[in-house]
Amino acid sequence: MSRDLKFVALAEGLFGPLTSKTAASCIRYTPERVVAVLDSSHAGETAQDVLGFGGAIPIVASLQESFRFGPNALLIGIAPQGGKLPESWRDTIRSAIEQKLDIWSGLHTFISEDTELAQIAAASGVEIHDLRKPPGQIPVSRGLTRDTTATIVLTVGTDCNIGKMTSALQLRDGLKRIGRRVAFAGTGQTGILIEGWGISVDAVVADFIGGAAEQLTLDAAKEADIVLVEGQGSLIHPSYSGVTLGLMHGSLPHAMVMCAQPSRTHLRNHDWVKIPPLTDLIRLHETMAAALRPAPVLAVALNTYDLSDAEAKKAIARAAEETGLPATDAVRYDPAPIVDALEAFHQTRLSASSVSA
Amino acid sequence: MSRDLKFVALAEGLFGPLTSKTAASCIRYTPERVVAVLDSSHAGETAQDVLGFGGAIPIVASLQESFRFGPNALLIGIAPQGGKLPESWRDTIRSAIEQKLDIWSGLHTFISEDTELAQIAAASGVEIHDLRKPPGQIPVSRGLTRDTTATIVLTVGTDCNIGKMTSALQLRDGLKRIGRRVAFAGTGQTGILIEGWGISVDAVVADFIGGAAEQLTLDAAKEADIVLVEGQGSLIHPSYSGVTLGLMHGSLPHAMVMCAQPSRTHLRNHDWVKIPPLTDLIRLHETMAAALRPAPVLAVALNTYDLSDAEAKKAIARAAEETGLPATDAVRYDPAPIVDALEAFHQTRLSASSVSA
Repeated sequence: MSRDLKFVALAEGLFGPLTSKTAASCIRYTPERVVAVLDSSHAGETAQDVLGFGGAIPIVASLQESFRFGPNALLIGIAPQGGKLPESWRDTIRSAIEQKLDIWSGLHTFISEDTELAQIAAASGVEIHDLRKPPGQIPVSRGLTRDTTATIVLTVGTDCNIGKMTSALQLRDGLKRIGRRVAFAGTGQTGILIEGWGISVDAVVADFIGGAAEQLTLDAAKEADIVLVEGQGSLIHPSYSGVTLGLMHGSLPHAMVMCAQPSRTHLRNHDWVKIPPLTDLIRLHETMAAALRPAPVLAVALNTYDLSDAEAKKAIARAAEETGLPATDAVRYDPAPIVDALEAFHQTRLSASSVSA
Repeated sequence: MSRDLKFVALAEGLFGPLTSKTAASCIRYTPERVVAVLDSSHAGETAQDVLGFGGAIPIVASLQESFRFGPNALLIGIAPQGGKLPESWRDTIRSAIEQKLDIWSGLHTFISEDTELAQIAAASGVEIHDLRKPPGQIPVSRGLTRDTTATIVLTVGTDCNIGKMTSALQLRDGLKRIGRRVAFAGTGQTGILIEGWGISVDAVVADFIGGAAEQLTLDAAKEADIVLVEGQGSLIHPSYSGVTLGLMHGSLPHAMVMCAQPSRTHLRNHDWVKIPPLTDLIRLHETMAAALRPAPVLAVALNTYDLSDAEAKKAIARAAEETGLPATDAVRYDPAPIVDALEAFHQTRLSASSVSA
């Protein structure tokens, strides 16, 4: 992923912080790679106008229009439930390939296995990168991360799309600032796109979720003091809880960070599921982790993007009071309260292991 | 699966109740389909000698020897961790294909996608049945089983290979005897082989575990009063807990049956994991289920095959006392205590729903 990527990010009809998470996160963490966003419903606006970040990155109405910004690749900017390709996007992708743009996709439907598109790509000398495509030969997990010296921290959450990846990336930056060697283990298409490596644990064969998480964590632990494992789904999500638990029991974290959105009372795509109080969810996660290795939830990372500053601060104070844990919005405010909690935990663990050694 | 199957069951070096679960279960529930077992280490003995059931089914030392019993298919009789084909079995499978035996396999490695074997099979007009191969187009789960009138019961357990499938099959038979319309929803290769339909939920792409479980349960519920969903893995298993939880949250049982083996103190392939007391495990399962739909554990199904009759009865009495629930070994003894508990639960649920309707 070392070449100079210049993406046009396809998010037709869906550009926004939650509806096009892949595009939005790419713009947040690697804005230099995005030359334009394609969404005719926001044409003429900028990324900043829609997301609240991303500066002057232009939004255009057609692929043709994006060409004057010099893209060399098309990024599929969404990650819908089920991960299928919206049929209406096929023409755009075909045109992009014909115009020699490489394709980067995080869909479950692998573009490289689409007979028509793969043929045109091969004929045009265009590369198709399916970020979710798992590596071959993943073994089942065997508890191997119990032997790492690195401190393993997993972000967990009350729902999908709640900030587990974003919080982990903010904490990574915060820990780097205080001099920690830190690795981010990307477990989903967007994290992999941003970091340049990882395994999409939701795309492996189900028996190997834990094995994928274990392999990733071991790789990340090689040259890090602290490994931040990107969480997926939620233990209470009707569709994805299996991935969440497999990721937890494969990575075997030493500690967790709970991510939540104060304004969300029910699961985003399942309004029949009420999100329980934070303290209940924290207990649930600690219980499930402790079945294999005790791992306290150290802090709460809130996603307050839809609240005013005053509301956000109130929500943070309330979460801290409810849980007795440090809390903040690690994107909107200084992530220091959570960074400090992780650093203190890491130091305590280090001294405990040197005493017992 | 309606044709007259006559299996030689391949279990070379591994024939036994736990080490060749697929062969053993096929012999327990469909003995008429197994004409011989191939395991040179037990050649000359019978299935009964090794398993304690299966009668006079002969064990032979070579494929050649099995031919005098007239097999028309080779059953891969094991389901090892990771589900790979033991390389040493390739020659036997090739010979079987050359001798016009169809192949039935529950491995993760699909024989039908093995270039060499698939080619020979095609040339010989031989069919390869990969029981774990998932159907295309499984959606993600959406809580749809909340609307079924059938009572959904999931078997759960302290470990893999503990009796979740076998107990469910025994309970199916017991419920049939008292006149219930009951369906067994097979979720693994062996259950699918025995019942003739199902989806191997551990073989689908991880995001779709719940969806596979949901689809299966809905299908099973169409013409049944009670659906018995075959459990997989364990919530405390380092490799497979993700599959276990995905299956729970996709099928959304109304009630559960806890399966355990009294003599097993630690996970079979992970001696670093101590199995917690039954009451703790029951609470854990009820908590995880209740996140989406409350489901009590109604009974305990013990696997006492390695205990004397006196020891088994003592273990059953102890489990009943510890948990306050009906308990028995549904294979060794009359499954009535558990069958009665399921029937009583079903009746209570029926009258509650007719009152509220």
